[in-house]
Amino acid sequence: MTTSNERLQQQLAFLTEADKLKSVLRATTLCDGSRRENSGEHSWHIALYAMTLAEHSNRPINISRVIKMLLIHDIVEIDAGDVPVHAKHDVAEQEAKEQVAADRLFGLLPDDQRDEFRAIWDEFEAAESDDAIFAKSIDRVQPVISNLETNGGTWPEFNVTPEQLESRVGVKVTRGAPAVWEVLQSRIRAWFGPHKV
Amino acid sequence: MTTSNERLQQQLAFLTEADKLKSVLRATTLCDGSRRENSGEHSWHIALYAMTLAEHSNRPINISRVIKMLLIHDIVEIDAGDVPVHAKHDVAEQEAKEQVAADRLFGLLPDDQRDEFRAIWDEFEAAESDDAIFAKSIDRVQPVISNLETNGGTWPEFNVTPEQLESRVGVKVTRGAPAVWEVLQSRIRAWFGPHKV
Repeated sequence: MTTSNERLQQQLAFLTEADKLKSVLRATTLCDGSRRENSGEHSWHIALYAMTLAEHSNRPINISRVIKMLLIHDIVEIDAGDVPVHAKHDVAEQEAKEQVAADRLFGLLPDDQRDEFRAIWDEFEAAESDDAIFAKSIDRVQPVISNLETNGGTWPEFNVTPEQLESRVGVKVTRGAPAVWEVLQSRIRAWFGPHKV
Repeated sequence: MTTSNERLQQQLAFLTEADKLKSVLRATTLCDGSRRENSGEHSWHIALYAMTLAEHSNRPINISRVIKMLLIHDIVEIDAGDVPVHAKHDVAEQEAKEQVAADRLFGLLPDDQRDEFRAIWDEFEAAESDDAIFAKSIDRVQPVISNLETNGGTWPEFNVTPEQLESRVGVKVTRGAPAVWEVLQSRIRAWFGPHKV
């Protein structure tokens, strides 16, 4: 077996393992409400969101890096699961689980690629670089749209108020894409107007 | 309403419509055989394939363009549906459907973005540029892995032979990523050895 062949086998093992992200279910549903969304299709959708909404970033970004970041940002959920933004959970415990998951999953890759992918994921998690701030903003946009499209979606279930949306979601979206939050905010206000949660 | 706001509304309308790709089912299943794969999660997975396997391209590529291409390559299936590679179908009729779908779906975007996305999709369909040839190669790899992981998957259903895989899939993968096909080919031969289809 050649070295190149070994590299390919490692890469394919990682890609095959990644398939499991399609079975990790999120709290939000598809926009038609037919079923819960999984983290694989969510990752595709927000990469498309980033590609489409890049111009609304309030800071200089490398959109290609942002897209790569979003393609791998949820991979750790294969082992650590998805934690809904409005659910109570132990933040430190979840972060520890995700670190172990990142070790295992990126560890399937050849060493140089393991380090490259891990660095991008670490950067996303740290949420400090311009690319990561925009990626994190966009990651928060799509579930809001899904909830708006499905008559509030999971908001009633989690007893979410407009103030909570502002502090848990709005602040993060505004950090990287304020114009996008402005549009969502007016839709959210319109929805909560007649609906008491 | 400002012009910038109108742009955003058009972009969000496109992104919301794109959600429907998660309900387009493909012939292949997830690697655990639990259900059929949808075209949204497939699009995520092959973008990740491209990102991971870029070094195996046999021609110079711009991987960021390839990834963007793969993120939108199946969008037209929202209107035109998915045609399995081993199923009989009228090629001209399907292409005509996809053109109408591309007009409608990319037409939801602001004009400049409509033209940009459409040009990338047209380039993918034409399969002539280096980026498109590699993107097309990678698009053919993931279903083979899925079938291998699920004991032949849909091959028995479609009476697929190793020769058909070589001519329908191998030729296309080899065109952009010959080393990847070599690895798959040996796995395919190993599978078909004991299995008569």
